[in-house]
Amino acid sequence: MHAASDDAVAGLRAVGREFHARGWSLGTSSNYSVVLSRDPLELLITASGKDKSALGPDDFVRVDASGQLIDPAAAGGRKSSAETLLHCLIAGQIPAVGAVLHTHSVWATILSRAGLPKGEQVRSLQITGYEMLKGLEGIATHQSSADVPIFANSQDMTELSDRIRAVFTAANWSDDRRPPLHGFLLSGHGLYTWGRTLAEARRHIEIFEFLFEVTARQRMLPSA
Amino acid sequence: MHAASDDAVAGLRAVGREFHARGWSLGTSSNYSVVLSRDPLELLITASGKDKSALGPDDFVRVDASGQLIDPAAAGGRKSSAETLLHCLIAGQIPAVGAVLHTHSVWATILSRAGLPKGEQVRSLQITGYEMLKGLEGIATHQSSADVPIFANSQDMTELSDRIRAVFTAANWSDDRRPPLHGFLLSGHGLYTWGRTLAEARRHIEIFEFLFEVTARQRMLPSA
Amino acid sequence: MHAASDDAVAGLRAVGREFHARGWSLGTSSNYSVVLSRDPLELLITASGKDKSALGPDDFVRVDASGQLIDPAAAGGRKSSAETLLHCLIAGQIPAVGAVLHTHSVWATILSRAGLPKGEQVRSLQITGYEMLKGLEGIATHQSSADVPIFANSQDMTELSDRIRAVFTAANWSDDRRPPLHGFLLSGHGLYTWGRTLAEARRHIEIFEFLFEVTARQRMLPSA
Amino acid sequence: MHAASDDAVAGLRAVGREFHARGWSLGTSSNYSVVLSRDPLELLITASGKDKSALGPDDFVRVDASGQLIDPAAAGGRKSSAETLLHCLIAGQIPAVGAVLHTHSVWATILSRAGLPKGEQVRSLQITGYEMLKGLEGIATHQSSADVPIFANSQDMTELSDRIRAVFTAANWSDDRRPPLHGFLLSGHGLYTWGRTLAEARRHIEIFEFLFEVTARQRMLPSA
Repeated sequence: MHAASDDAVAGLRAVGREFHARGWSLGTSSNYSVVLSRDPLELLITASGKDKSALGPDDFVRVDASGQLIDPAAAGGRKSSAETLLHCLIAGQIPAVGAVLHTHSVWATILSRAGLPKGEQVRSLQITGYEMLKGLEGIATHQSSADVPIFANSQDMTELSDRIRAVFTAANWSDDRRPPLHGFLLSGHGLYTWGRTLAEARRHIEIFEFLFEVTARQRMLPSA
Repeated sequence: MHAASDDAVAGLRAVGREFHARGWSLGTSSNYSVVLSRDPLELLITASGKDKSALGPDDFVRVDASGQLIDPAAAGGRKSSAETLLHCLIAGQIPAVGAVLHTHSVWATILSRAGLPKGEQVRSLQITGYEMLKGLEGIATHQSSADVPIFANSQDMTELSDRIRAVFTAANWSDDRRPPLHGFLLSGHGLYTWGRTLAEARRHIEIFEFLFEVTARQRMLPSA
Repeated sequence: MHAASDDAVAGLRAVGREFHARGWSLGTSSNYSVVLSRDPLELLITASGKDKSALGPDDFVRVDASGQLIDPAAAGGRKSSAETLLHCLIAGQIPAVGAVLHTHSVWATILSRAGLPKGEQVRSLQITGYEMLKGLEGIATHQSSADVPIFANSQDMTELSDRIRAVFTAANWSDDRRPPLHGFLLSGHGLYTWGRTLAEARRHIEIFEFLFEVTARQRMLPSA
Repeated sequence: MHAASDDAVAGLRAVGREFHARGWSLGTSSNYSVVLSRDPLELLITASGKDKSALGPDDFVRVDASGQLIDPAAAGGRKSSAETLLHCLIAGQIPAVGAVLHTHSVWATILSRAGLPKGEQVRSLQITGYEMLKGLEGIATHQSSADVPIFANSQDMTELSDRIRAVFTAANWSDDRRPPLHGFLLSGHGLYTWGRTLAEARRHIEIFEFLFEVTARQRMLPSA
């Protein structure tokens, strides 16, 4: 692989160690990707079923815009993450995306379930009034609102991406005045977020996790 | 001892350090074992009363299918864990088991008490709807349900194993379509889980701990 | 820069690493300053938009009493933190202040919101009865009360400092018998605290964080 | 100092680092002692006002049974902890005590306040039904009960020790069948515990902290 790819591997391995330690990527859950090229779209993504606390240099594969392995021989039998299609969808739909991170924290999980009663297909979690919102790119005041869509979970990635694509398509990504959209939740499952760089995506995870914990604990606090 | 045994010792010492740091094996609580051979059944198990944050190379003994020390001279006065019989029961009843881990976390403890009102002898905790369930071997969708039996605690290991054996015997372990059973709780006490390898058993602990925390916090969260 | 400045940089970098690890300074939130001189007032303060977990030796600038860069050429394009005016206000109003620390923790955030209903401009959080209060300089008994003002958050630093100045001016800082005032909260935002030295300001953060967590959890605990 | 004293210093410094990291000894709170000799009674105890995360080799003093410095010249101006009298009381009253540890955790603090309504002078927290109770010396079954006295806090150490002495005197320490007493709480303040060795006292802190967290969270969990 070339240097960009080596950097991406090193960056994602560090993310895995950190996120496992912080309880956001336990077991073999979670998957991460970095955009290696845009034309044509090429992603470096975690291989399926790897322990995120100990990602090795070979625990990644390269996929194209449709999620197919670019170099099956080099993959040596490794498969891309089962949720590869969602990474491709996000990177394909949002022009500036350089990295996509997907995590499974306790607070994201319980908020996503509380926010989407059984049988409903989509809702959104509104977070407003917190200074920490400014950690999300493009938000300049605590009076802004982060509107995090919650989608019903599914094991059928095609069906699930279709539902998510519908929401993405409705957004005009070249309009600077559109409300910022930096992530979504899958109910009972976890968070997808992204950024122009891996560092920005990592910061968005950190900010969202803070906002989820604050939102959930605020609900638990009786008024004084 | 032979190489397999050395590997098992190294693996269990690492588990002890990690689980103590994560709050799952405080004080001298917890006990861990690895299956060294199947025919006849031989387990390497933590000796009684050891601090799990600092297990030494000699803090283990070998026992047979009935929990008796295999080489009392080599044990040098060390006794096997008081709960050895439960390890033998699990390894003896479930053909594929390669390691058994027993931990005492806060969330497992409070859920196990809430799930088993005083005087009752057995119940089960149903966990369903979480993507993280897929971290348990053989579960392929969040729509599966983990059914974790909760047994009343006891200091009489013979009486306790009899109650647990009754549940195990009812399961047909060679039937691939049986619902997965990867662990059980002792009320006010903790979790037993297992896996085909030590790595799998460790992952099951991590997944169960996540699911217990999520289940308990979900109950604590007022609806929005 | 001179030696005092080098020490301040080293001290603030260590504070950033520690506070990020403890969850009090996530993303690019938080800002810290040390008083370099009093006559005229000169502060060393974190530059705007830096990741607090990895502050470099150049991630600081020097400002005067009005928050203006002292040596714009040396700053090399770096700007002082957006909240510089608040640091200047605190250091200017309170004679003994040697360091000012501003953090964003979960517990501070939820208590500050619960304590200041929408539309109100100022309130205070009363904390009394805890031995740990004695960790705040000048408090000698658990029967004292820490009275932490909560101000409505704002992105307009001039307007916000005016409101805070009104509270500060009312205090007679040369009167040893005045009730101790070591910090204030911005609603939905975080904590400002200070000390005669950086070590004392760091201890005040640690003590306040403990008191906030205890106060919030006490409210969540049903009476036995 | 002699070798026993050097070992005690090393042991208490390690305890300080660990307990600060676990949130039990923040700021300059907490104090620890080890019994150096019994006849006459001599304690090595933390000096007053030291940061427990960074205890130096000189941050200790030696005191006699009445809490007086044994070698004021060697103390070089350091004073013994303000709560020295309580350490002397515990070591003097309980024959087997080799170490006394006092900590200030969040869970101990809120349980101690909830357990002692304002104006009352003494109560006790009953903890029963948890396997982890067996981590307290002399407890062999989860059906035992740990009975932790809660005393109203005071800044007057003489008055406070008198109240505690009354409870201690009522216990017959040479009767093996007396209910185990391994610690007490000061309301809104923290935990005192002890052990025959420093290792045992440290284990008792760890066990009590687990039991306090479990007790408090159990109260917070709605029944399923």
